[in-house]
Amino acid sequence: MAGISLSRARTIIRKTLDAGKEMELQPLSVIVLDAGGNVQAFERQDGASPGRFQIAHGKAYGAVMLGMPGSAQMARAEAQAYFIAAANGALGGQLVPVPGGVLVKDAKGRVLGAVGVTGDSSDNDAAAAKAGIEAVGLVPVI
Amino acid sequence: MAGISLSRARTIIRKTLDAGKEMELQPLSVIVLDAGGNVQAFERQDGASPGRFQIAHGKAYGAVMLGMPGSAQMARAEAQAYFIAAANGALGGQLVPVPGGVLVKDAKGRVLGAVGVTGDSSDNDAAAAKAGIEAVGLVPVI
Amino acid sequence: MAGISLSRARTIIRKTLDAGKEMELQPLSVIVLDAGGNVQAFERQDGASPGRFQIAHGKAYGAVMLGMPGSAQMARAEAQAYFIAAANGALGGQLVPVPGGVLVKDAKGRVLGAVGVTGDSSDNDAAAAKAGIEAVGLVPVI
Amino acid sequence: MAGISLSRARTIIRKTLDAGKEMELQPLSVIVLDAGGNVQAFERQDGASPGRFQIAHGKAYGAVMLGMPGSAQMARAEAQAYFIAAANGALGGQLVPVPGGVLVKDAKGRVLGAVGVTGDSSDNDAAAAKAGIEAVGLVPVI
Repeated sequence: MAGISLSRARTIIRKTLDAGKEMELQPLSVIVLDAGGNVQAFERQDGASPGRFQIAHGKAYGAVMLGMPGSAQMARAEAQAYFIAAANGALGGQLVPVPGGVLVKDAKGRVLGAVGVTGDSSDNDAAAAKAGIEAVGLVPVI
Repeated sequence: MAGISLSRARTIIRKTLDAGKEMELQPLSVIVLDAGGNVQAFERQDGASPGRFQIAHGKAYGAVMLGMPGSAQMARAEAQAYFIAAANGALGGQLVPVPGGVLVKDAKGRVLGAVGVTGDSSDNDAAAAKAGIEAVGLVPVI
Repeated sequence: MAGISLSRARTIIRKTLDAGKEMELQPLSVIVLDAGGNVQAFERQDGASPGRFQIAHGKAYGAVMLGMPGSAQMARAEAQAYFIAAANGALGGQLVPVPGGVLVKDAKGRVLGAVGVTGDSSDNDAAAAKAGIEAVGLVPVI
Repeated sequence: MAGISLSRARTIIRKTLDAGKEMELQPLSVIVLDAGGNVQAFERQDGASPGRFQIAHGKAYGAVMLGMPGSAQMARAEAQAYFIAAANGALGGQLVPVPGGVLVKDAKGRVLGAVGVTGDSSDNDAAAAKAGIEAVGLVPVI
């Protein structure tokens, strides 16, 4: 299974948190999943609420399992709510279909995994994830 | 773990029920959760329907796990129903995103837990919770 | 549905905790369910681990739903493990079939609900529950 | 909420992985939970199998929710298998009751959370966790 090495995952998380600090965002939680939808690494900043693992996971899990970043899932949810609700049911109720679930591709366009960020507005979450992914030379699809 | 001592939780519950009596509300059920979302204490008044534990729990659980009181969850559900539905799925289907789920903070702004009240209108439930929390010198975020 | 008034449930919980203190037990958690298996009241003492609601609930829930106290469920589990496992599956995985799940009857032998206690050894948990139930003039079936 | 700061959680994870390297263990996965059983941080080493988040989580979750480290849960499972099976059901099927689920206490004996390690033998997993926790001046209960 393609994936993101632990070393790279750590850097993505740190750079995402750095971006959050620069942007003066609320405390963030950041997850990195591999291309199979499995957890590689996660960090929750001090002050974030306790359920943030589940939300970060849901954003990234939907992105990698459907091959659609959170923004595309949100557009689909607004156009056809029952489709995303049904896909969510089929995937065990784990999706959180809003921005902040970001696909990670390599330079050749292969999906390596996904990053999920939660804590501030969905758009700010996605912007922080983008900065983290670009910091390791990979390609975010937000 | 930081939280609300049993002694304080008892007083919150009694004062919430007292407020309900003064306001002439329907029979109330009141739960106190710690800052990790775990149950500290619960009481259901005589005459309340049997499923009130689950409703009170869902109100308080969502508040503490997302760091958002029921009123904020309700506003988000009205603006973006599928987000709250999805967050609920990610948290095991346990949220009840309406007023009556009230965050409990100390004077320094740290979250100590949450109170969930159910039995009357959501706004009355929240008002009773507020009275109970203030009675022990803590800060409700309704 | 037959049940235990909130006032009586409170007294059962206090007297169970008093018995625990006298017996020098670990911090206890005590739940009272009505005759329909629904939560009436619960308290977790300071120092008890956070998952004690679920364990106390499982002890009392099995007692009232099967009409068998924890000791009888344990005997059955030892004689015929697959029966208790299957009953547990049928009841949503919520049973904890050991002493500390105590049926509450009135003087005429009618089941009014159950008490679940956890925190010390199962036998000590049951002894504390017995003291609490007898303190309100009801009949424990341990 | 009381717990383990992200900075400390990171150090625990790194020192646990360092210990695994020194002991020449298989690739490890390490989770840190707060005192409420919620995820603070997690890392899975390259080469570990994809389901290791769930195993690490189950070891740590059982420890914190029951207030019993994995070794004590294993002893109980060997003496009374149906009790641990039932406790697992009551806690949503999330327990993994073997060594490698280690409670984290401070110098005053308060539980701050738990560490879960998986990848090598259960005893080696626990030894690595112990080294990680001691490296930050906290007290492991293995």
